[in-house]
Amino acid sequence: MYLSNRGHQVGVLDNFAKRRWEMELRVEPLIPILTLHDRVKVWSEVTGRPVEIFVGDLCSYETVKSVIQTFKPDAIVHYGEQPSAPYSMMDHNRAVFTQTNNIVGTLNLLWVLRNYAPECHLVKIGTMGEYGTPDIDIEEGFLEIEYKGRKDILPYPKQPSSLYHLSKVHDSHNILFACRTWKLRSTDLNQGVVYGIETDETALDPRLATSFHYDEVFGTVLNRFCVQAVAGIPLTVYGCGGQSRSFLNIRDTLRCVELSILNHPRVGEYRVFNQFTEIFNVLQLAELVKSNGGRCGLAVKISHLENPRVEAEQHYYHARHQKLIELGLVPHLLSDVLLEGMFSRIQEHAHRIKKDIILPNVHWNGKTDTRQVDDVSCESAANRSPLGAANA
Amino acid sequence: MYLSNRGHQVGVLDNFAKRRWEMELRVEPLIPILTLHDRVKVWSEVTGRPVEIFVGDLCSYETVKSVIQTFKPDAIVHYGEQPSAPYSMMDHNRAVFTQTNNIVGTLNLLWVLRNYAPECHLVKIGTMGEYGTPDIDIEEGFLEIEYKGRKDILPYPKQPSSLYHLSKVHDSHNILFACRTWKLRSTDLNQGVVYGIETDETALDPRLATSFHYDEVFGTVLNRFCVQAVAGIPLTVYGCGGQSRSFLNIRDTLRCVELSILNHPRVGEYRVFNQFTEIFNVLQLAELVKSNGGRCGLAVKISHLENPRVEAEQHYYHARHQKLIELGLVPHLLSDVLLEGMFSRIQEHAHRIKKDIILPNVHWNGKTDTRQVDDVSCESAANRSPLGAANA
Repeated sequence: MYLSNRGHQVGVLDNFAKRRWEMELRVEPLIPILTLHDRVKVWSEVTGRPVEIFVGDLCSYETVKSVIQTFKPDAIVHYGEQPSAPYSMMDHNRAVFTQTNNIVGTLNLLWVLRNYAPECHLVKIGTMGEYGTPDIDIEEGFLEIEYKGRKDILPYPKQPSSLYHLSKVHDSHNILFACRTWKLRSTDLNQGVVYGIETDETALDPRLATSFHYDEVFGTVLNRFCVQAVAGIPLTVYGCGGQSRSFLNIRDTLRCVELSILNHPRVGEYRVFNQFTEIFNVLQLAELVKSNGGRCGLAVKISHLENPRVEAEQHYYHARHQKLIELGLVPHLLSDVLLEGMFSRIQEHAHRIKKDIILPNVHWNGKTDTRQVDDVSCESAANRSPLGAANA
Repeated sequence: MYLSNRGHQVGVLDNFAKRRWEMELRVEPLIPILTLHDRVKVWSEVTGRPVEIFVGDLCSYETVKSVIQTFKPDAIVHYGEQPSAPYSMMDHNRAVFTQTNNIVGTLNLLWVLRNYAPECHLVKIGTMGEYGTPDIDIEEGFLEIEYKGRKDILPYPKQPSSLYHLSKVHDSHNILFACRTWKLRSTDLNQGVVYGIETDETALDPRLATSFHYDEVFGTVLNRFCVQAVAGIPLTVYGCGGQSRSFLNIRDTLRCVELSILNHPRVGEYRVFNQFTEIFNVLQLAELVKSNGGRCGLAVKISHLENPRVEAEQHYYHARHQKLIELGLVPHLLSDVLLEGMFSRIQEHAHRIKKDIILPNVHWNGKTDTRQVDDVSCESAANRSPLGAANA
């Protein structure tokens, strides 16, 4: 919708996998969303702009080939992956599915581009989670290393924290190789955690609402906290909450994609943009939701759960994100106004909140119970790293 | 055979994939080899030592689970992957097969170990090709990086040069994650290019011969050169031949595996050993085979072909390989004696050499013709880096 609204000619390839996974796990977006065909119809009625629909699976080489040859895109925005870390850690089947689905879909794209459309620009949605939490600064994709008196610029070493995040690391390596070997061109957008509900496009018509998840598998942390605040459930902080992550507003995500498309890489170039605007730790977000909730008349409590993931809860985190700013990104930062807007949008649909799909049931180490931890044994994470201090 | 001969109780899981790939490409090992069942029978007759056979595919989780639960291994030596770079670059199907076969087999092993045998030691056969040819020293798996005043030890940045090598990089990332998250233990043997025909075990009986390939897809460079020397075909050096690689004698490969097994990693530890003993560039090997061939009455010529691969032909290459030496490896170095032995063993089977399966038909960039290049435009690679100079 964002790209179409700005005059780009848009085609969508979808296999409706996300809706199958939702069925499978008994979760659904908070706001009811239309089918793809109906949304495209509404979009065209509201804006007069057509969007072409292709139904098929990226894991079929013939499908990818036929779509590329029919639509002849200048750029492909590759969102077609299983995107949930907890989903990839649930069991063996879903782990193998996540990696094969994501890797094969991307390999198919690369081979079709190699064989039929080498000029086409592949915009890959990666994740900041590829980097993990190293004890040195995170750069944008590559790192200049000085070692024993010699220097080289090498791919940034990756330490992803789930089998899903690993699938993205594998993609990154495959794409870098394809650009170097086949002279393809690609932008890898290492995206932070997305929050928010509304965009200029969804605001045009209620039937254009986009998918807003708050469950443990597909929901992201700030969206989940906002839903918990409205539903009167304690905010579930995993462990002490010192996990720092990078975030961006849903309004900025597509702007970043458009900036990448408008400023395409050279032939043979693989470039990485860290696509986020701010860094917070989990407890800081919980405190923010609590204080803002208070102002909006919501009595918000914070609860610490035994961390279902295997990850550092206190760590250094300083990640660069200059390249998209240099291309012209003007960030929508997390503000009180936004949180108020989210609360009221969630309140409209509060009757649809399923309280029993929020608590984590997927444990990285195979355990099956979730305990509340009363004594949080680490130093106060919110105090340690002042809000926004890492957003240099 | 090597491990069984030293008193280890050995079981083999095989799906005979390599023999299918040989059929598919019309290639076969120089020396005829028996079926697995017959070789195991001969082995048991000759040595009195049994080897248990399991037939099945690592890509079946149920197969892996059942074998692990039946055999209850202390260690798994994971050789079950598609091992050829050219095979992975032939076409889209084989590329996707290589990555899914290798990744899914390894993921199945990791999940079965997680669920049923977390104490078992996974010995993974990786490759030195994972590192590529960075302009700094190659360390064993990890690199201490000092950056902007901070330090961390991070996974060594990988720049593999084929979709096969990429599959090994993906495995390495998955295994490191599994060790950290599930407290598994693994040794990743980043193996150099193996050369040689004979071992103490194959010498016990001609029916125990092991697979010796000289074709463009499964043959390795020194083996191929020796066959070309015997067959009176010019040695085919790709490009100027300045590509430096690490090598080891077939006799050392299993010793390295045994040393890893006898000195297992701690619970939760993922360690990497660079498993090679010497470094040569391709032209050095060609010159070696030429001069040794001359002494054995073979008139050997060297021919430069347009490089079918996309790789640096002149580059820095200094790779560490201390850890296996520290565990007790005493290398069999490449010597004139060995080359003479290889020539005479190949001569016994010279009538089986298929001359038309040696020239490269698989081109990394999709081209289909192979040209001889007369003017090698790079400086003499053999002169630039004196033989063995990098073997510090």
